[in-house]
Amino acid sequence: MSEEKKEKKNAETEQLKAEIKELKERLKAQQQLLREAKLPVLVLIEGWAAAGKGSLIGELISEIDPRFYNVTSSVIIPEKDSRYPFLYPYAEKIPENGKIMFYDSGWMEDVVRKYVRHEITKKQYKERVRSVNEFERQLRDGGYVVLKIFLNIDKDEQFKRIAAIKEKANTEWRVTDEDMWQHREYKRFKEAYETFMEETGETVKWHVLDADKRKEVIHDALELLVKKIDKALEKGKYVGEPFEEEFPLIPMPKLADVDLSPTISDEDYKEKLKKLQKRLGELHNVIYRRKIPVILCYEGWDAAGKGGNIRRVAYPLDARGFDVMPIASPEPHELNRQYLWRFWTRLPKTGHICIFDRTWYGRVMVERLEGFCSEKDWKRAYNEMNEFERQLTDWGAVVLKFWIHIDADTQLARFTDRQNTPEKQWKITDEDWRNREKWPLYEEAVDDMLAKTSTENAPWYIIESNDKKYARIKTLEIIIDALEKAIKNQMKKELD
Amino acid sequence: MSEEKKEKKNAETEQLKAEIKELKERLKAQQQLLREAKLPVLVLIEGWAAAGKGSLIGELISEIDPRFYNVTSSVIIPEKDSRYPFLYPYAEKIPENGKIMFYDSGWMEDVVRKYVRHEITKKQYKERVRSVNEFERQLRDGGYVVLKIFLNIDKDEQFKRIAAIKEKANTEWRVTDEDMWQHREYKRFKEAYETFMEETGETVKWHVLDADKRKEVIHDALELLVKKIDKALEKGKYVGEPFEEEFPLIPMPKLADVDLSPTISDEDYKEKLKKLQKRLGELHNVIYRRKIPVILCYEGWDAAGKGGNIRRVAYPLDARGFDVMPIASPEPHELNRQYLWRFWTRLPKTGHICIFDRTWYGRVMVERLEGFCSEKDWKRAYNEMNEFERQLTDWGAVVLKFWIHIDADTQLARFTDRQNTPEKQWKITDEDWRNREKWPLYEEAVDDMLAKTSTENAPWYIIESNDKKYARIKTLEIIIDALEKAIKNQMKKELD
Repeated sequence: MSEEKKEKKNAETEQLKAEIKELKERLKAQQQLLREAKLPVLVLIEGWAAAGKGSLIGELISEIDPRFYNVTSSVIIPEKDSRYPFLYPYAEKIPENGKIMFYDSGWMEDVVRKYVRHEITKKQYKERVRSVNEFERQLRDGGYVVLKIFLNIDKDEQFKRIAAIKEKANTEWRVTDEDMWQHREYKRFKEAYETFMEETGETVKWHVLDADKRKEVIHDALELLVKKIDKALEKGKYVGEPFEEEFPLIPMPKLADVDLSPTISDEDYKEKLKKLQKRLGELHNVIYRRKIPVILCYEGWDAAGKGGNIRRVAYPLDARGFDVMPIASPEPHELNRQYLWRFWTRLPKTGHICIFDRTWYGRVMVERLEGFCSEKDWKRAYNEMNEFERQLTDWGAVVLKFWIHIDADTQLARFTDRQNTPEKQWKITDEDWRNREKWPLYEEAVDDMLAKTSTENAPWYIIESNDKKYARIKTLEIIIDALEKAIKNQMKKELD
Repeated sequence: MSEEKKEKKNAETEQLKAEIKELKERLKAQQQLLREAKLPVLVLIEGWAAAGKGSLIGELISEIDPRFYNVTSSVIIPEKDSRYPFLYPYAEKIPENGKIMFYDSGWMEDVVRKYVRHEITKKQYKERVRSVNEFERQLRDGGYVVLKIFLNIDKDEQFKRIAAIKEKANTEWRVTDEDMWQHREYKRFKEAYETFMEETGETVKWHVLDADKRKEVIHDALELLVKKIDKALEKGKYVGEPFEEEFPLIPMPKLADVDLSPTISDEDYKEKLKKLQKRLGELHNVIYRRKIPVILCYEGWDAAGKGGNIRRVAYPLDARGFDVMPIASPEPHELNRQYLWRFWTRLPKTGHICIFDRTWYGRVMVERLEGFCSEKDWKRAYNEMNEFERQLTDWGAVVLKFWIHIDADTQLARFTDRQNTPEKQWKITDEDWRNREKWPLYEEAVDDMLAKTSTENAPWYIIESNDKKYARIKTLEIIIDALEKAIKNQMKKELD
């Protein structure tokens, strides 16, 4: 290189260094603004093994206060050992309002690697791509700033880097067998990465950065992040528009048209209860052994008998294999994240049963009616919840939703009884009476909910509960039927 | 059996059934009182494989509302795969105020099984017994109702039960290899269980129930629980007394006697910083590979320079292997549990570094001075935190604690600078000024803390930070020195 060229090169490097320093200062200044605007920022850094994802993140965070960011490094669990939906570990880590979360690789690597490895089928791959698009759109629509970067290096560069790391005893462990295997399969990975980015670049754009040049990549990533945050700060928290999506829906009656007269005799009840509980206990063994996750969702009027219904279902279940999740008003740390987060983090493991005592449908009932979210938010939620549930059934879960139904007179009688019975008084609050006054509004909301979210994969069942015993028997029968079908379906697939 | 005897037997069974029903009703009535009294209840059910732990829990919860209880089933991770202190999975699950948590086996089975299996040494066993006693005492002293039950069956009965379960295809999977092995090693287990119960029965008593008789065991467990809760409700939330324990303490100077004049030249700083960061980066590789967990605790005056110090330490670390945990005021769900819970749940994995930006020592500083806990609570905390840290170092962690120290004049200068610099204003709040007025009280609290909690295994270091650059270099040197020692110690042990 001539003296002149060298000088020019040096001047360029100095210029780049100065710009990086300035961008870091800008990011540092943004952290407080993000907190004030309650904006959550999610930065996904994907890319080739040895492309420098970790050290890039090290640079991005170097001037930020630890109160404003977190870093999560993905450990991809082999498909056969995975006990949760594939998005679970990533959904679990979404940032709270005012914070930046850096993902040192994430769902892209998870899906691509498993597909290249033939751990998942083409069908599963497609489902996962769809889930990824839904997941990212839901975050964006919920006001998340999402930035996706892919660090690109060619095969020669990857070889150089892997060799350099392996050379030193102290760093050799950093190159895993998985990395070596990726290097050998560079071409297949290249194709898979490119396809995945094409398939998932519409809602949230991918930024492919050339990672050969260390300083440039730091500069460019910083610039992308700073500009994206600036734009979000300027525009304010984004609220996504409601949208139509075609889900195969099961037609549901209006609540007003439901016949609430069915009853059961005490004798019949006792006999059936015992038989059904025994059968459910047996099936629990089977689904546990076959690793089928089961999610039972309970919604219903106050005093409709949800609690007693749940207890009858839970009684025959092995305590090691089920959980009841009572859902109360969200706590501050839950309000600070996308509304489905507190349900993602409560999902059961494969083979386990989770009974939700109230669910994510609070979004389109109490949150809608009390104005806890915007109109756009709850209108968007029908589709978002359908998508969420499809992600659960894609995973293999049985999802059943029960609306425990009574009429207003029955509710009044039960409220009055609670009021007059000392040991039941805690069950009745002023809020219950206030909600009761809004019965017609709730009825409208429930009708909307049942009409828009009873999908074939996650159907609603209206359980007539003026007679609580009748309701329990009906619920048990539906659960047993669904579990038997799920087991048969799994057997069929095994024989295919 | 004669007709008369049969009748007597039947009458007894009916009597027992009636009593069980009544006890369940009483427990049901207690749930609301527990909530009002904010009492957390922890029920540990241990016992032989196939003794019926799960089904006992099923009975105990059968009438309780899901809002008032949870069940957790222990999965014991083999020692070699375990990435957290052995108490971690149990500490993570402690109940919140007003709730009952049922443990379907827990720390007893964990310690005993690993000891019988020779997965842990005699020394480790003894450390764990001590940790268990500390853990249970801390919960009790923090107002937890703790009930421990052991379900006992003899070898013949165990055989009968295992055989019955294995007979059916559907339940066969429930008998694990581990269970079969326990049955073969019945005698060794018996001895180990008995010894463990002797060693851990002083603070919280063990109740050994004869699990042969199903109805009796349900009755007795219910009775124990109901009575224990009644007593706690009557007496109110227990607050443990402070106690003396001999920890080997390192003598610490009073803050007033610390010479804050040390400085470093810019040139020296730059050179040393670069060298030390490089070294720390190398050591991070080694401790990652050797799976040594590292916990760095930062406390100090407002504006002492904690943030900048932490950033200099974090900069050379690989993002995949460290986390900075900023500790703010506890959130409601954290306040609802024992005060160390939010630190247990933030511990690093083996091989990872966790930097706590403020720590559990808030208990004996802000919580003491602002009256957020009782005098007994913070006075007890010195020992409790020493115990907690010993549990961490028993696990193999390096624990270092830094008090970032400045004088009042320097703080005033920095506060004023923050006030006058727009982009720094967010860093200074009214609370900082209020805290500053209490400087003498804080100084007393910090002197107490340093005197009582600088243990040999988890020492405090006072970092003179009037010159922030000097402080950063000193901190880096201490960390590097400690890591080098920890690595050497591990090597020595391997060669022993």
